[in-house]
Amino acid sequence: MKTTRLGLLGCGTVGGGLVDLVERERPRIRARYGVDLEIRHILVRDLGKRRPGVDRRLLTSSAIDVIDDGCDIVVELIGGVHTAGAFVRRALGSGKDVVTANKALLAAHGDELFEIAAARGLSIGFEASVCGGIPIVRVLHRGLAGDSIESIRGIVNGTCNFVLSRMEEGLDFDAAVRAAQQRGFAEADPSLDIDGYDAAQKIRILSSLAFDAPITHESVIGIRTVTRAEIERAHAGGCVIRLVAEAERMPGGVTLRVRPQEIDAADIFGTIRDEFNVVAIRGRATGEVILTGKGAGAQPTASAVLADVIEIAQLRRGRGVEARDVERPIARPVAVRAAAAW
Amino acid sequence: MKTTRLGLLGCGTVGGGLVDLVERERPRIRARYGVDLEIRHILVRDLGKRRPGVDRRLLTSSAIDVIDDGCDIVVELIGGVHTAGAFVRRALGSGKDVVTANKALLAAHGDELFEIAAARGLSIGFEASVCGGIPIVRVLHRGLAGDSIESIRGIVNGTCNFVLSRMEEGLDFDAAVRAAQQRGFAEADPSLDIDGYDAAQKIRILSSLAFDAPITHESVIGIRTVTRAEIERAHAGGCVIRLVAEAERMPGGVTLRVRPQEIDAADIFGTIRDEFNVVAIRGRATGEVILTGKGAGAQPTASAVLADVIEIAQLRRGRGVEARDVERPIARPVAVRAAAAW
Repeated sequence: MKTTRLGLLGCGTVGGGLVDLVERERPRIRARYGVDLEIRHILVRDLGKRRPGVDRRLLTSSAIDVIDDGCDIVVELIGGVHTAGAFVRRALGSGKDVVTANKALLAAHGDELFEIAAARGLSIGFEASVCGGIPIVRVLHRGLAGDSIESIRGIVNGTCNFVLSRMEEGLDFDAAVRAAQQRGFAEADPSLDIDGYDAAQKIRILSSLAFDAPITHESVIGIRTVTRAEIERAHAGGCVIRLVAEAERMPGGVTLRVRPQEIDAADIFGTIRDEFNVVAIRGRATGEVILTGKGAGAQPTASAVLADVIEIAQLRRGRGVEARDVERPIARPVAVRAAAAW
Repeated sequence: MKTTRLGLLGCGTVGGGLVDLVERERPRIRARYGVDLEIRHILVRDLGKRRPGVDRRLLTSSAIDVIDDGCDIVVELIGGVHTAGAFVRRALGSGKDVVTANKALLAAHGDELFEIAAARGLSIGFEASVCGGIPIVRVLHRGLAGDSIESIRGIVNGTCNFVLSRMEEGLDFDAAVRAAQQRGFAEADPSLDIDGYDAAQKIRILSSLAFDAPITHESVIGIRTVTRAEIERAHAGGCVIRLVAEAERMPGGVTLRVRPQEIDAADIFGTIRDEFNVVAIRGRATGEVILTGKGAGAQPTASAVLADVIEIAQLRRGRGVEARDVERPIARPVAVRAAAAW
C-alpha cells in the first residue's frame, strides 16, 4: 500500500487535533479505506513552542518544505486570507490536492482557487469550513444530489447560542458576551458573530451548494437587539430565542435571511445550545432532512478535515499521477459555482 | 456530454417516483453534475397496466432487454431476493454498475454481490436501502470516515412509530396495526416490523458500515408487549414510547439491541412520528451527530436512488471503459465487510 503523505500548514487547535486523530485512526483507515496516511511536515511559526504529542522532527518554519518536499495533500489550517491563499495557490500550482477548514479564505478567493484546481484536475476539500463536525457539504452535494432543494434553515453560530443561553440564565448581553470571550467562544472583537455576519457567510456557502440560483435578497440582523425581557417573555411561553439563518428558493433567485427568532423549546431547533449547530434542508422529493452536531471545536473539525483527506487519498490512488482529468466526488464544479456566488 | 443510460428493473412506487424525478431533475443534474441521464428501458411485469407519466415505449417485460441492451447503470427496484439477485448478478457480470434500494437482497446476498462488483471494479450503490431519504450511508462511510464510531442509536421503523402514535391517540394494539395496514404502512404480515426484525436488520447494516468489529451480542424485542397502560403512564410523565435500535462498540465486539424505550417527549427522539426516522451517531472525536428525515416513501427513496446514480455516472465518466481498477467513493471495501457481517 502506497503511503499518502500529508503536509500540514499550521498546528494550532485544529492542527494539533488532526495530528492526534491521524495517529490514533491510521490503522483503522488503512484497514477500512485502503489508504495509509503519514504526516510528513508541519508548518509552525514558533519551532520552540511546546506541542505535546507532536513529533518535533516534523516541524518546520518553511512553508516551501511542507508544500514542495514530496507531500501529496496539503492541509491548510493556518487561517486568515493572504498567507493561506498564497500557500494554497502554490500547493495547487505544484499539483497537490488541498484540504482546508478556512471559510474566510474560500469566501475571499474560493472562486479563483476552485478554478485553478479544476484546470489542473485537483480537489479542494472543504467539509470542515462549515458547521464543524456535521458533514453538511457531503449531504448537500452528494446525499441530496438527486433532489431540488427548496430551503435551508439553520442555527449555525455557536457564539450567539452561547450568549443567548447565558442570557436565559440571567446574564445581561454584555456580561454574556464577556463570558463567551472568556470561554474562547467569541473573538476579541465578537461583532462578526454577534451581528450575524458569520451566520450569513455560512448560509451563503450552504446556499451556493444547494441552489443554482443567485442570492437576490439578503437581510442580516444579529442578536445585539435581543433584550433580557424578550428572552424572559419567550421563556414564559415555552420558547427560546436563537439566531436563525435561512435561505429559500424564490422565483428569480434565493432569499437569504439571518435574524433572531422565537422557537418552541420542544422543537429540535429549540434544543440547540452552545457549540451545537442544526441545519434543516427541505428537498422537493425528500422532504425535510435535519442534521445536528458540534459546529466547532478542534476534534469535530479535525474529523471533518480527515474525512476529506481520506476521500482525496482514495481518489489519488485511483487516478494516478497523469490522469488528471478524472471526475472527483469532492465538490469541484459546484464549488466553483459556490465561490462565484459568495 | 455523453448520456448515461439507465436500465430500471421494476416500476412500482419507487420506480415510478424515480421516473418522475429523473424527468424533472435532468436539466439541473446536467448543469450541476455534468451528467446527462436517460432512462432507456423499464422492466415491468404487466405491460398493459396504466402508468401515468411513464413513456410506454420504454416498457419491456424482458429483463435481458434492460440489462444487456446498451445501458450503463442498472437500477434494481423489483424487491425480493431470488429474481432480483439473478438480475443483479447478470448486470454485474456484463459490466454494469448497480444501484439498489433492496435491503432484503443485500442482507441475503450482499457478501457475494459486493465481491463480484469488487472483482470487476464496479459499484453497488445502496443509499436507498436504509432509512429512505436520510443520506446515512454517505454520512457513515464518508462524512465520519476520519473518526472511530462508538455507538449508533436510531428510530428506524416507521410502522412501529405509526402503531405507537395511534396507540397514544387511544387505539389498542390490534386496531393500530390494522390502521397501519390500511394506510399501506405495514405488510399483510406485519410481524417483520412489529417484532423488531426490520429495525434489527437496519441497525445491522449501519453497524457494519460504522464498526470494524463483529456483532457479539444481539437482542431484539418488538412492540407487541407494549400496552396502552404503559403508553399512558409514559405520557403522564411527559414521555413517549418508541422502538429504539442501538449498536454499541464494546470490548471484543459490537452489542446490538432493539427494544421499546420510554423517551422524553422534548428529546429529538421523542418527536419522531410515523414515517420519520432518526439516527444518532456518536463519534469519538466528532461527538454526537443526529440525522432525521423520512425513512420511507416513494419520493424520498427515489431521491436516494438518484443520488447514487449521479455519483456512479460521474465515476463512470472518469474511469472510462477499460480503467476498471480505479477506486470509487461508493462503499466498495466497506460494503464487502458490511455484507459479511450481516
